[in-house]
Amino acid sequence: MTYSELSAQIFQKQSYLCIGLDTDPRKLPRHLLTESDPVFAFNKAIIDATHDLTVAYKPNIAFYEAQGPRGWESLQKTLDYIPNDCFTIADAKRGDIGNTSDLYARAFFDPTAAGLAFDSVTVAPYMGRDSVTPFLAYEGKWVILLALTSNIGSADFQRQLVGDQELFEMVIETARTWASPDQLMFVVGATQVDEFSRIREMAPDNFLLVPGVGAQGGNLEEVSRLGLTAKGGLLVNASRSILYASDGLDFAEKARAEAKALQTEMARQLAHIR
Amino acid sequence: MTYSELSAQIFQKQSYLCIGLDTDPRKLPRHLLTESDPVFAFNKAIIDATHDLTVAYKPNIAFYEAQGPRGWESLQKTLDYIPNDCFTIADAKRGDIGNTSDLYARAFFDPTAAGLAFDSVTVAPYMGRDSVTPFLAYEGKWVILLALTSNIGSADFQRQLVGDQELFEMVIETARTWASPDQLMFVVGATQVDEFSRIREMAPDNFLLVPGVGAQGGNLEEVSRLGLTAKGGLLVNASRSILYASDGLDFAEKARAEAKALQTEMARQLAHIR
Repeated sequence: MTYSELSAQIFQKQSYLCIGLDTDPRKLPRHLLTESDPVFAFNKAIIDATHDLTVAYKPNIAFYEAQGPRGWESLQKTLDYIPNDCFTIADAKRGDIGNTSDLYARAFFDPTAAGLAFDSVTVAPYMGRDSVTPFLAYEGKWVILLALTSNIGSADFQRQLVGDQELFEMVIETARTWASPDQLMFVVGATQVDEFSRIREMAPDNFLLVPGVGAQGGNLEEVSRLGLTAKGGLLVNASRSILYASDGLDFAEKARAEAKALQTEMARQLAHIR
Repeated sequence: MTYSELSAQIFQKQSYLCIGLDTDPRKLPRHLLTESDPVFAFNKAIIDATHDLTVAYKPNIAFYEAQGPRGWESLQKTLDYIPNDCFTIADAKRGDIGNTSDLYARAFFDPTAAGLAFDSVTVAPYMGRDSVTPFLAYEGKWVILLALTSNIGSADFQRQLVGDQELFEMVIETARTWASPDQLMFVVGATQVDEFSRIREMAPDNFLLVPGVGAQGGNLEEVSRLGLTAKGGLLVNASRSILYASDGLDFAEKARAEAKALQTEMARQLAHIR
């Protein structure tokens, strides 16, 4: 999906919601456990209940990997089931030397070589340029680079001063020389609102993927006010607050209600930038 | 495997060789392609031919992931086949917020929960402490943290000055407050020999995992002289130079010859520290 297609989806659906498919087999509603693939059955129901309210789905690869080969099959089926009008993110936080990043890129981008067909993958910047560029070699595919994450540990290295800027700022500035905003987004945690203006100034046209709304306590209104652009420019992720809104027979219905509440607020925020 | 067991293996086998199982289906000898699982057949032959010369095997997870569910099955079979006297490393370079790192830890460390039974996993430090500690919760399991990698991109961020030290030094210093050397190694590329003395001084008792000997051009003699300790303290990895020494019927024999040459040099280096 291209930058302008993603932007168009945001205004059409009046939503910049991304639903994180952090599907934990231990948290599934009991009635799904008799399904042949409970994880896929759950994801399918969530997608059915929310795809008109969300512009992106973000399977968290760890949750599938922890299930072994079966998990990869659930992931493949989930990805195949996501409608074409939704942007897809492999939240994998990969990053390795060039020839290995080539392989990760193939794993997430290249179905002709036994890989998956995600639109994008999250990548860690620590190993530098040649760990990132192999993903950019796939035309129309995106790198979503970790910049300033939502967790406490973000202070350990990301917030350290390198010269007159913090490390995450250097990451943003440097990575913008590697790729255009058509292929490069940044991860900025919703818990980091104090830095949002500065980041938007440094990366005026890059999409920002913002986790941390909901379970992690980030504030949607503030993130939107500081981060939205005329093209949208934001994907705000919620995972647990939607997926596990109920663990009963009504789990999909309750998930939809949570997603609807976020989408309604997003429509309100989008009206402001018109 | 504990620190002292690994150390004992090194002196017993007179080797600190780690063989990187970066098994690329496109590079397999043709006669293996008729096997039901060519990747496992290749790994099995390599392990049979080298396990007395090496103290560790390091499957590069990207190569298996790129094969989808089938790849995870090859990985599982490979891990099961590695003899108990060899240390095992999941070269995965993972790292995410706490609850996700929990899942990655389960994927690589916990066979009772559909995971694998590796001794260790490589982890990227960018997201800080809470992305690393979930792996340390598994008693007897190791984190191998990226410090100074062997690729060109290591200069982009790892070599940047943070106060009066470089970022990779800060990573080493900080991470040493998170875990004892019984559970924490660092990745230091063999192409970074100029920094080896400094790193050994900062981390006198941590094992260093050193990729980049062989195809990437690092120097075994120099790495050993600067990095070996009285307990061993080094795992030097070679991948492509061993795996693909020949693509013919004699591939395992040629792989053994390459491993033997490295082990012979390692025995010579170990004699110096006595």
